[in-house]
Amino acid sequence: MKVGAQHYRSIWSTASPMAGQASPTVTIIDQTELPHTFVTRELATLADAARAISHMQVRGAPLIGITAAYGVALALAADASDANLDLACRTLVATRPTAVNLAWAVARVEKAVRPLPSPSRAAVAWAVASDLAEADVTQNDALGRHGLALLQALADQKSGPIHILTHCNAGWLAAVDWGTALAPIYQAHDAGLAIHVWVDETRPRSQGLLTSWELAAHSVPHTVIADNAGGHLMQTGQVDACIVGADRVAANGDVANKIGTYLKALAADDNGVPFYVSVPLPTFDWTLADGRGIDIEERDGSEVRRVRGKSAAGVLADLYVLPPERPVANPGFDVTPARLITGIITPHGTFAPSEISQVAALREAA
Amino acid sequence: MKVGAQHYRSIWSTASPMAGQASPTVTIIDQTELPHTFVTRELATLADAARAISHMQVRGAPLIGITAAYGVALALAADASDANLDLACRTLVATRPTAVNLAWAVARVEKAVRPLPSPSRAAVAWAVASDLAEADVTQNDALGRHGLALLQALADQKSGPIHILTHCNAGWLAAVDWGTALAPIYQAHDAGLAIHVWVDETRPRSQGLLTSWELAAHSVPHTVIADNAGGHLMQTGQVDACIVGADRVAANGDVANKIGTYLKALAADDNGVPFYVSVPLPTFDWTLADGRGIDIEERDGSEVRRVRGKSAAGVLADLYVLPPERPVANPGFDVTPARLITGIITPHGTFAPSEISQVAALREAA
Repeated sequence: MKVGAQHYRSIWSTASPMAGQASPTVTIIDQTELPHTFVTRELATLADAARAISHMQVRGAPLIGITAAYGVALALAADASDANLDLACRTLVATRPTAVNLAWAVARVEKAVRPLPSPSRAAVAWAVASDLAEADVTQNDALGRHGLALLQALADQKSGPIHILTHCNAGWLAAVDWGTALAPIYQAHDAGLAIHVWVDETRPRSQGLLTSWELAAHSVPHTVIADNAGGHLMQTGQVDACIVGADRVAANGDVANKIGTYLKALAADDNGVPFYVSVPLPTFDWTLADGRGIDIEERDGSEVRRVRGKSAAGVLADLYVLPPERPVANPGFDVTPARLITGIITPHGTFAPSEISQVAALREAA
Repeated sequence: MKVGAQHYRSIWSTASPMAGQASPTVTIIDQTELPHTFVTRELATLADAARAISHMQVRGAPLIGITAAYGVALALAADASDANLDLACRTLVATRPTAVNLAWAVARVEKAVRPLPSPSRAAVAWAVASDLAEADVTQNDALGRHGLALLQALADQKSGPIHILTHCNAGWLAAVDWGTALAPIYQAHDAGLAIHVWVDETRPRSQGLLTSWELAAHSVPHTVIADNAGGHLMQTGQVDACIVGADRVAANGDVANKIGTYLKALAADDNGVPFYVSVPLPTFDWTLADGRGIDIEERDGSEVRRVRGKSAAGVLADLYVLPPERPVANPGFDVTPARLITGIITPHGTFAPSEISQVAALREAA
């Protein structure tokens, strides 16, 4: 999507590792600097890619999958042995536990290159990673079209703008382009629907500030709120629908997403507000019967204690809101039960959670 | 309660305005500096008292009531005319809209002094304010005893510590001493019950950091969490009960409290976790049939945009997490419907929301 006058993706490759070409690299937008500073960084090695994921320079389930796929390619460009392929896959899968896209993308690359002789592995890995990135854009475009139909139906039922609440950042910064939860919002806005987005701050990492940055860059009307505010807004009729992304969807439609999603789904259910989850196909984990099997990442307490922002003089700095000796817990995700979800928007259309087994059959088409 | 070795209240008087004595003042702990720096401030005028309330140097429904009562006394010590009494009451009641204790306390002082000749008004106002402060301590002590019985019952049903989740700060900093929601926790801890408190950060003002400061000062085990985390903790069996305070309780048991309380009550209800509200008698508003009539304060957006903390070098500073041009909404409270509340702890015992009319009869005994 647009940043200023220029179109960006969240990740792009700058060379392919064919014989005779320059060393391959991929470029990312360093999201730990956003929304304050727009900085791009080159990833040239496996270690760069692993660090970018674990330090959340890239984040969002689809994007960490794509970054990991390129990470395997970068590793193989340096050393295409079986041992290094094993190391790369193991290292990348261990960077973060909750999003299924990560292991899925690594497995896709590994499956393609494992049977090949070493000299051809890097180029094929690169091609697979690039294909996965293109597939992500295509799928998110489809999410946008199916979601737009839902938003159009809401708009037809009322006068004035429709108000959508979203949690975390499931925009183009979390994917390669378009985003998952935000794809319908961008397409509705581009189609001329009057739309306004309530943006949850999403403590402790405050990914809502990334969502606000994205929406502002694309001129989509929105308002940032504390995570505590959404229930009140729903009680008072100020929310027409919720749309969120997901890190993992179980076979019964239970959804793991950013911590706090469950609370918003409860409020939506209590107030008759439709609650949608928008996900590309790699986010489904058909091996999981329900959400109880989803591994919930416990992240470092410093994310709760430390806040990043700009001083009045415009200098980027960190502040400690809590002394280091004060105990903190920081679960990164929660599980929203299928019973609270109105519909799951997929590239193949929108399904009730009880009907998503229909999507399984289409999985390999991804 | 204790700060280091010394016992403090959140507000205390340093002289009474009797003829021949020094100018009366009251002293408060400046809560905008906590949890980073412990600073006390003298309030010498009506303007000081009004500013302390509106700028949240004092906050918490009981404490702003007591501060306002002293504010009337300070105003009358300077000018005990009818006109100045009118001005003082009007000014103080307008400082914040949601907590009923504020208007209640001002009305109590006004009723006592209105019939009196000007020369005796200041001393009587001072005495009434002091009586209200003592009554607050007595009532909160009673909340603690009734709440302790509930916690003891929970402790009898399990092994290991009981885990209580609280939202915002309803501790002694929010009252005169003991606190409302925290009174049972302090009394349980002092009685030797193994207790651990999950402390919601409570964005955007982060009053949970005050709760953490209080609990640490009294050596009560606790863990600070993002507001988003409580639902997950309840889903995974890590919360035995929730206890919160309130700013206003309607006649049907609907409760206005800090924004986000409703979301935790939904999660408690969804997971069979008992949800208690602990309030002194002035927090009941018997004139309100239900929560729909409660005025919800919209606070300044700078509370969402700006965060206060200490730099790594230990310097207290403010940072902007969002640029000033980015739109923000900041409702300060929400209403938790009575159907989500297990019990309301009052100085006269714990009542189901449907039974709180029994408390109305005892109101005048306060």
